[in-house]
Amino acid sequence: MFRMIAALLLAAWPAAAQMEGPLTIARQGSYFVGGRDLRSDSLSNLPAYAVSGTISVDQVYVRFQEPVAPARVPLLLVHGCCLTGMTWETTPDGRMGWDEYFLRRGHPVHVMDQAWRGRSASHPTLINPVRAGQAPVASLPTVFAAGREDAWGIFRFGPRFGESYPAMRFPLAAQGEFWKQMVPDWNFSVGAPNPSVTALNLIARRLGRVVLMSHSQSGIYPFQAAATGRAGIAGIVSIEPGTCPAANSDMAPYAGLPILVLWGDYVELSTRWAPRLAGCLDFARAANAAGGKVEVAVLPEMGIRGNSHMLMQDDNSHQIADWLVGWMARQVRSE
Amino acid sequence: MFRMIAALLLAAWPAAAQMEGPLTIARQGSYFVGGRDLRSDSLSNLPAYAVSGTISVDQVYVRFQEPVAPARVPLLLVHGCCLTGMTWETTPDGRMGWDEYFLRRGHPVHVMDQAWRGRSASHPTLINPVRAGQAPVASLPTVFAAGREDAWGIFRFGPRFGESYPAMRFPLAAQGEFWKQMVPDWNFSVGAPNPSVTALNLIARRLGRVVLMSHSQSGIYPFQAAATGRAGIAGIVSIEPGTCPAANSDMAPYAGLPILVLWGDYVELSTRWAPRLAGCLDFARAANAAGGKVEVAVLPEMGIRGNSHMLMQDDNSHQIADWLVGWMARQVRSE
Repeated sequence: MFRMIAALLLAAWPAAAQMEGPLTIARQGSYFVGGRDLRSDSLSNLPAYAVSGTISVDQVYVRFQEPVAPARVPLLLVHGCCLTGMTWETTPDGRMGWDEYFLRRGHPVHVMDQAWRGRSASHPTLINPVRAGQAPVASLPTVFAAGREDAWGIFRFGPRFGESYPAMRFPLAAQGEFWKQMVPDWNFSVGAPNPSVTALNLIARRLGRVVLMSHSQSGIYPFQAAATGRAGIAGIVSIEPGTCPAANSDMAPYAGLPILVLWGDYVELSTRWAPRLAGCLDFARAANAAGGKVEVAVLPEMGIRGNSHMLMQDDNSHQIADWLVGWMARQVRSE
Repeated sequence: MFRMIAALLLAAWPAAAQMEGPLTIARQGSYFVGGRDLRSDSLSNLPAYAVSGTISVDQVYVRFQEPVAPARVPLLLVHGCCLTGMTWETTPDGRMGWDEYFLRRGHPVHVMDQAWRGRSASHPTLINPVRAGQAPVASLPTVFAAGREDAWGIFRFGPRFGESYPAMRFPLAAQGEFWKQMVPDWNFSVGAPNPSVTALNLIARRLGRVVLMSHSQSGIYPFQAAATGRAGIAGIVSIEPGTCPAANSDMAPYAGLPILVLWGDYVELSTRWAPRLAGCLDFARAANAAGGKVEVAVLPEMGIRGNSHMLMQDDNSHQIADWLVGWMARQVRSE
């Protein structure tokens, strides 16, 4: 029994893991995947810049760091609604983000900005023709921002704005820094197929082997990518997805693929989230009946309580990351 | 003579500088400076998100890495028009960006996204009221993209699109990766004072001591920040600024401050850039007559030829970075 526990611990924790102090990395950098040329006559209404020309749109920005001895499968971290890759960096209260934490645990880590958001360019050609009177007002893009009063409940900080659930773990004292992470969301204006999903397939093929870790709005993306093609996809960790695949959809794309759907606390108190968890449980049953390896983990059922929807920033975020490293070590082949 | 050269070399090159291979850093992370609350009734036109609420705007995203033994003054790298902090990361042809290169030379490096661009949020409240018929079309934001046919000349790759200057050093074979770095520019829609300039002052005060390194559109920002307040500003490196301060403006803000204005090649061939270089020379004369320490360096006059406007991505970008490290070691007090 002791030997089994020791072996499990060794599998989950490389000898050299340094979780604080100086960090040595083998390589870092950034790159784009995807993108297409768009020729437009509505690039500018300023005399200093030409009105006509060609721009690149739909490309997706990725930043990566690789540990010196990558003992573990590479990860792609995909943020959710109204946010950017900043989700995975320094937490609002200044602690180490999951990007560096997973790296220190031995995973090469890639972080992307969803298409049309952050460093992945949107474009002005849905706005300028309307401003110039050449297109109807109805052709303006659908772009929205989540106000904090609304986001409070969506992120399950508490039942209503300014009131938190008992023992809720999001660092509310630093909430101002979190609200600054939020950006306008153009997701309803991007075309089909969603270029962020296309990016997942491109990154998986580029890396040859990657666990796609998504959150909330992007929760469904790894499933959609796997349905397009499994090349390079070693596993899926979907954190509180906005939706799981429908239980009556084709389960063939997920057969044999290690999949974890992870949930925080207070889900049953949320009319927004409770049906989504139920839908994921339906999906897991259907997928597993068809040869799937889907696990739905609800943190409070494992004795880990108080987590919000932004559990990668909650005050026990490193504990959850450790649990995920262990899950991946057990479930995902490392080569 | 030999001792003087050796002393200069030692000053410019810390013994431990490792310019390739694994990188050890003391600390990394990201943060925001600035920002203000904006209450709006035009956040969304989707049923899933509230139309009214409070968002944070004008904040500026900064990512940083610190060397283990910071021997040198911290740097803030500020990108130019139509770009993001990606400017300073991996070059289009996959070489190390100035962010890591300066870090390896001993400088703590901070990289920001200008306000309303990249991970620094813009907001949809100039678009949604028009879409809802509550505001006139003329209130739509001024937002533009630089088409590559236009950008080609602006970035001085050559005299006309598809034709490069002889021996021009920008990695044109990888130009597709560069076009993907470009994003819509909201700079004409941000309010006054420009929150990107405000951010420079906030970062300088936060760090206590920093060289502000700007480029092109942001070239003037460090001067504007210094005119607001010198606290924390240890020096200015302005790379091919869109404009220098006017020669007949108040020179008091620059007295005694180490300032470098750096230019690449082919400037005299560009009707856009030649007057700007001339204006910077006028500024330098006026500033230096009033106790300034302004140097205007034109790379070809130092025997370094072929540099475009994007000289931090040209094939000799590391050579130029080395020269800048030397300039800062000579001109900027390190404590």
